[in-house]
Amino acid sequence: MKIAIDAMGGDNAPKEIVRGAERAVKEFGDVEIILYGDEDKIKAEIAEHERIEIVHTTEVILGTDEPVRAVRRKKNASMVLMAQAVADGKADACISAGNTGALMTAGLFIVGRIKGIERPALAPTLPTLDGKGFLMLDLGANVDAKPEHLLQYAIMGSIYAANVRGIEKPRVGLLNIGTEEKKGNELTKAAFSLLGDADINFIGNVESRDLLSGAADVVVTDGFTGNMVLKTIEGTALSIFSMLKTTLTASFKNKLAAGLVKNDLKELKSMLDYTEYGGAGLFGLNAPVIKAHGSSNSNALFNAVRQARQMVSHSVPDTIKQAVAKEEKEELK
Amino acid sequence: MKIAIDAMGGDNAPKEIVRGAERAVKEFGDVEIILYGDEDKIKAEIAEHERIEIVHTTEVILGTDEPVRAVRRKKNASMVLMAQAVADGKADACISAGNTGALMTAGLFIVGRIKGIERPALAPTLPTLDGKGFLMLDLGANVDAKPEHLLQYAIMGSIYAANVRGIEKPRVGLLNIGTEEKKGNELTKAAFSLLGDADINFIGNVESRDLLSGAADVVVTDGFTGNMVLKTIEGTALSIFSMLKTTLTASFKNKLAAGLVKNDLKELKSMLDYTEYGGAGLFGLNAPVIKAHGSSNSNALFNAVRQARQMVSHSVPDTIKQAVAKEEKEELK
Repeated sequence: MKIAIDAMGGDNAPKEIVRGAERAVKEFGDVEIILYGDEDKIKAEIAEHERIEIVHTTEVILGTDEPVRAVRRKKNASMVLMAQAVADGKADACISAGNTGALMTAGLFIVGRIKGIERPALAPTLPTLDGKGFLMLDLGANVDAKPEHLLQYAIMGSIYAANVRGIEKPRVGLLNIGTEEKKGNELTKAAFSLLGDADINFIGNVESRDLLSGAADVVVTDGFTGNMVLKTIEGTALSIFSMLKTTLTASFKNKLAAGLVKNDLKELKSMLDYTEYGGAGLFGLNAPVIKAHGSSNSNALFNAVRQARQMVSHSVPDTIKQAVAKEEKEELK
Repeated sequence: MKIAIDAMGGDNAPKEIVRGAERAVKEFGDVEIILYGDEDKIKAEIAEHERIEIVHTTEVILGTDEPVRAVRRKKNASMVLMAQAVADGKADACISAGNTGALMTAGLFIVGRIKGIERPALAPTLPTLDGKGFLMLDLGANVDAKPEHLLQYAIMGSIYAANVRGIEKPRVGLLNIGTEEKKGNELTKAAFSLLGDADINFIGNVESRDLLSGAADVVVTDGFTGNMVLKTIEGTALSIFSMLKTTLTASFKNKLAAGLVKNDLKELKSMLDYTEYGGAGLFGLNAPVIKAHGSSNSNALFNAVRQARQMVSHSVPDTIKQAVAKEEKEELK
């Protein structure tokens, strides 16, 4: 299979991106990679490889660019060419660590939506204390979601969790402000009954305070709430670790203690590092489109390739297409 | 001034509640307290005091009770009698650590709304790393908020921060998923322009990841999002501290280190303890109604009395009434 990668997206591009790609072709004998970006810069980082093709371009979409305008105007940007390769059938999936809004735009307008999917969703796998992680969607592709969108997220998330993450009958939870059925706002109340009727393993409402303990395998929410919760987890964790650092360097005695537990604390921090779980999938498009974290290192990019590879080999977009069609038929009955 | 307290609400009632009340009358010479609850149980905990009156009742609203039905049917519940005392002018403010939904119902239907306020808001002060804290509203009184509600929250929050917390020109931020003006969902986009025109120190959008670093003095959001973010902060902090505990007891070496920093870590944890900042005010009612945390100890209850006392002595409800009337006049111009 062929995977197109935007070599110029993200804080550590192209170095870490192309090194992750190089590691991926070495590890996965069935993967061919097309790198889009500045050929000289890419070649400065990695050796030639028979399964790595480089398509040269100097145009780049920046993190500060207005997404829709950038995708429309920068026709030769590495990210746009990468998406175009998928649309043209030259690649089976694509990955970028660049501008999230631009990637969603490129995914929607260039790669295209699956028929029947109203809104694509941004779906990362987030960490849990037991190391298993959970899929959460939508994390911000669609900020004003309708109950029907949440139903589609649940179906797409279930398919991904079962096929790519190998979870049998994945537990699907609706993110809400209470576990009781009647809790929530208009959106979650309406979504609750839709999810209850769907052909998924719906376990009811889950609360944000239980997410890191693994309350569900797939957590469904609107893009506004999902993005808010993700940033709250990140911000709270960062704040606590920064307070911890201050405490552990506050005195000689504390520094001594810190020295003893240093490695274990690093490990603890890395448990919350979600780049280990790959990137965020853009679900509902005709082919896998993966958003790798902006600060991706080669390891994160490698994991994103593994993720794209599994989505392609398990035909996740096709399975979603069939499930959506089936759901629509059920509704017509 | 007189403050009515539900002696039977919360996990540690009546013991911690009435002990907190006892401490309050000792500290604040201008405060008289009326305790509503089981007289024998109350008297078993505290000595008689000339500024503490006990009104005996055995009926109690439980945490598991359905809020609206409980307030309607349990006419002699300690919480209902407490709210009634305020409505009858026998008390200037009231405090309960009991069922949050029931207290909101009692506040709305017994104490009553300020004319012009469409929806009351639940407004706790949450911790920041610098120990100053910030006011956030609404935390769940009104889950389907309109932009106009957010404007009223901003005005009420500003008045509280200036009068009770003594912050000059409090910085009001709109909780959003990006700092740029155009970010967000329909609600935040519409609220952004309303807040920009209001007579407050609006500093624009703030992100949830910056809350604990003190991004604003007053943070405005709808009750669904606010409740979600609060529970995410709580859950993330709890998860990290539980992971930390596991790490620090994993080996003899780590236990040794833990012994050295134990007290400092406790202090760190207590920095995130928002009971230090008093309870959550129910803003927009005719008199101060304070929801103390369900797990309130005597210290938390004492802080809630201090808070109620300041709201009464600074006439916060009256100031809100005037500001809302002024805002309405401006709109008619």
